[in-house]
Amino acid sequence: MAKELKNLTKRAENYSAWYNELVVKADLAEQADVRGCMVIKPYGYAIWEKIQQSLDRRFKETGVQNVYFPMLIPKSFLSKEADHVEGFAKECAVVTHYRLKNAADGSGVVVDPEAKLEEELIIRPTSETTIWNTYRKWIHSWRDLPLLCNQWCNVMRWEMRTRLFLRTSEFLWQEGHTAHATREEAEERAKQMIRVYADFVEQEMAIPLVVGVKSETERFAGALDTYTIEAMMQDGKALQSGTSHFLGQNFGKAFDVQFVDQENKLDYAWATSWGVSTRLMGALIMTHSDDNGLVLPPNLAPIQVVIVPIYKGEAEKAAFDEKLGALADSLRKRGLTVKYDNADNKRPGFKFADYELKGVPVRLVMGGRDLQNGTIEVMRRDTLEKETVPMDGIEDRVEAMLQDIQHNIFNKAKAFLDAHIFPCDNYAEFKERVKDGGFFLCPWDGTAETEARIKEDTQATVRCIPFDTDQSNPGTDMVSGKPAVCRAIIARSY
Amino acid sequence: MAKELKNLTKRAENYSAWYNELVVKADLAEQADVRGCMVIKPYGYAIWEKIQQSLDRRFKETGVQNVYFPMLIPKSFLSKEADHVEGFAKECAVVTHYRLKNAADGSGVVVDPEAKLEEELIIRPTSETTIWNTYRKWIHSWRDLPLLCNQWCNVMRWEMRTRLFLRTSEFLWQEGHTAHATREEAEERAKQMIRVYADFVEQEMAIPLVVGVKSETERFAGALDTYTIEAMMQDGKALQSGTSHFLGQNFGKAFDVQFVDQENKLDYAWATSWGVSTRLMGALIMTHSDDNGLVLPPNLAPIQVVIVPIYKGEAEKAAFDEKLGALADSLRKRGLTVKYDNADNKRPGFKFADYELKGVPVRLVMGGRDLQNGTIEVMRRDTLEKETVPMDGIEDRVEAMLQDIQHNIFNKAKAFLDAHIFPCDNYAEFKERVKDGGFFLCPWDGTAETEARIKEDTQATVRCIPFDTDQSNPGTDMVSGKPAVCRAIIARSY
Repeated sequence: MAKELKNLTKRAENYSAWYNELVVKADLAEQADVRGCMVIKPYGYAIWEKIQQSLDRRFKETGVQNVYFPMLIPKSFLSKEADHVEGFAKECAVVTHYRLKNAADGSGVVVDPEAKLEEELIIRPTSETTIWNTYRKWIHSWRDLPLLCNQWCNVMRWEMRTRLFLRTSEFLWQEGHTAHATREEAEERAKQMIRVYADFVEQEMAIPLVVGVKSETERFAGALDTYTIEAMMQDGKALQSGTSHFLGQNFGKAFDVQFVDQENKLDYAWATSWGVSTRLMGALIMTHSDDNGLVLPPNLAPIQVVIVPIYKGEAEKAAFDEKLGALADSLRKRGLTVKYDNADNKRPGFKFADYELKGVPVRLVMGGRDLQNGTIEVMRRDTLEKETVPMDGIEDRVEAMLQDIQHNIFNKAKAFLDAHIFPCDNYAEFKERVKDGGFFLCPWDGTAETEARIKEDTQATVRCIPFDTDQSNPGTDMVSGKPAVCRAIIARSY
Repeated sequence: MAKELKNLTKRAENYSAWYNELVVKADLAEQADVRGCMVIKPYGYAIWEKIQQSLDRRFKETGVQNVYFPMLIPKSFLSKEADHVEGFAKECAVVTHYRLKNAADGSGVVVDPEAKLEEELIIRPTSETTIWNTYRKWIHSWRDLPLLCNQWCNVMRWEMRTRLFLRTSEFLWQEGHTAHATREEAEERAKQMIRVYADFVEQEMAIPLVVGVKSETERFAGALDTYTIEAMMQDGKALQSGTSHFLGQNFGKAFDVQFVDQENKLDYAWATSWGVSTRLMGALIMTHSDDNGLVLPPNLAPIQVVIVPIYKGEAEKAAFDEKLGALADSLRKRGLTVKYDNADNKRPGFKFADYELKGVPVRLVMGGRDLQNGTIEVMRRDTLEKETVPMDGIEDRVEAMLQDIQHNIFNKAKAFLDAHIFPCDNYAEFKERVKDGGFFLCPWDGTAETEARIKEDTQATVRCIPFDTDQSNPGTDMVSGKPAVCRAIIARSY
């Protein structure tokens, strides 16, 4: 086994260390030279590109168009929406100058004090303010609506405690910003986009979800409602994986975006915004991977099939190259991404360990005896099962196996999620058990006081009020003893 | 004719005003709220996405992988490569603080003086420094080479005079950064990438080019050689559309990136970098468009074919919807992007003018008589020629027409370029004629003094020493009277 692999901490020993090591050892990302920022390496970025392509297609199918707005936002914009400034304006990168000059002592460059900006600029932590300030110029009549824009970009929030993909100061994301003529249409769009996210995450990332609405405390700053997809990691903690916000007329009013409606009356535009980020990479890694390394869903794997020959000498290598090169081409013709690895500067055992670590879903190995017998060894990464099968019909088998892996890892994660959702209406029991992880479905009186008490006692928060839970007769709040207004998912989270 | 179109300034009146108006009226981009930055609108961004996709595929075919590096760069990095700091470090956005706080008087937010960074951070003007500081950790042996990375991202250079797409403080681009074991391989990669750019720009953007190498004066800060593609706008001025740099070992040495070569000796890695930006959008607009608006090459047009019915009443509309909806589907099955515009809140004349303004390559119009006769009117945007043709076989005709437009606008621009390259070895004549535009192919003595003199006298610069020009017997420098070392393209430029 390769050195890198042997050194990977086991999940049971230290789940957190396992994750941190895996991200680096699998060549996904690493800490950058700037505090709290990351470098996304080629293998990690290839997964992110697949996520982007699939989401982008889904957005466009709902009529969304891509745009690009500036990364710098005038400081004064942040103060315009009262709730928004509370939630977002504080921890962010501030541009105060626009020029450097040579230091007088020749030691390098210094900030030119003469080049001070009149108004400081903020690197966008999110773009509602600058986009709605522009929408004022674009929206005049109900005919200009709906306006459905999205941008793929970088954003910056000055985080004190960072972890690769899960929480970094700079991260990549998409942010959708829509404007509508009616409240109903905006609310429906906010819900539609959380469904688009849920469908993508379940179908392509093979991550099962709880979908619901946030409590007021946990809402986006400036939203009337925040919808969320919550995934469960293998340690039972929740990872908020995407959110969609119904913003009411808050930004329309703050930025004076008025339009003439069909009855010829002026009204403020209704808004939504919605986003997912490179945090999804963290969810992907933590949901499926194991002590041997990454496990990737075939739909997002940069390499779906790797083919490795075990040969002695150049003549045998040439025979493999011909036979396996043809196999690789034949699989590629079916739309699969295939790597044929005949490199002679690494031993087969090293290659096997490396492709396991990188989560390549299917591995095909051919040795001298296979060559004679017309067979090939197939291994699937999710179960690590191996078998030797005839070369005849191998393409169909590989294709079917990839589909099976995609379903199998979803089902495995779904079984884990279902087994760790615990109905609970006893606070003593809750406090005892919540530290071991899991989603607790609890009667809640709907008050921020109860939420604060739970958080203080246990660090757990209301993740959401789930859509697919029977909310009739929610019972009695387990903390306050008051009548509950709903059953909520309460859990510790990333 | 629609109001927007009538108001477009004519090229002959004021080419510069024509461009500025066209960018805004055709809904490509507009000035942002932050000085010198732009908002790229959906129609403009759709073109940029096509540019990205096509280039990205070409990069990957040469083995390049995408990555993402942080947008912030520690100030000290910029001082490490001596030439680089001279060229790039000065006009850039400087982050000095990482937090805002509520103003004591309740007036909004102010910069928190307590949250001052120990070392200022610069928003990347280009990423050689931060990438090479990371490559030190990635490159140890010749086996780690070549390293072929690219990123699509935003960059910022604090420009004083800005124009949409052509020169903005923030812009979008890709930057490729490669590391190699030998000088020869790095030089070949730098040349390869300028060929990739040239092929893309000529084949997809239909823009003919002069390809060559920059003079020392015009080189990228830190490069040993800069290769360039220079396009000619309709006013005869040059637009530098993409560059590829052979960086030697300058960054390898500045950031101490050493590797063990095949003879087991330590050497510094050899570097290239190469980039194109949203400036290409400016080149696209200015090369092909006319007094009626945009002319887009079919390969990059967001809408390739628009179909407009001219109907009276709901019954006729329904008949058109059936017939033309089927035509749209049939064209889409061939991979074309088609818009069927049966909206009844805009008159046909308005639609025609709008699609002309937006440069849709082919327009199909069907009226009541066409419906009876089984005919349809076809108009091509490049020549504005119209004809009424049978519906039978219309798909083949449209497909052929799109190909013809792609070739025709290239040929037209190529004829213009060829007609405006003037061999010239008389400085008096040069000075007289250069202000009217054109590329002057002149004997040059290779000195910076001569370049400076030409620039001072005429604002023209050495654009490049072209590859495809016979450089034997270059003659006598037209300014200094000394023996010329080459013939160079000298022109005014954007």
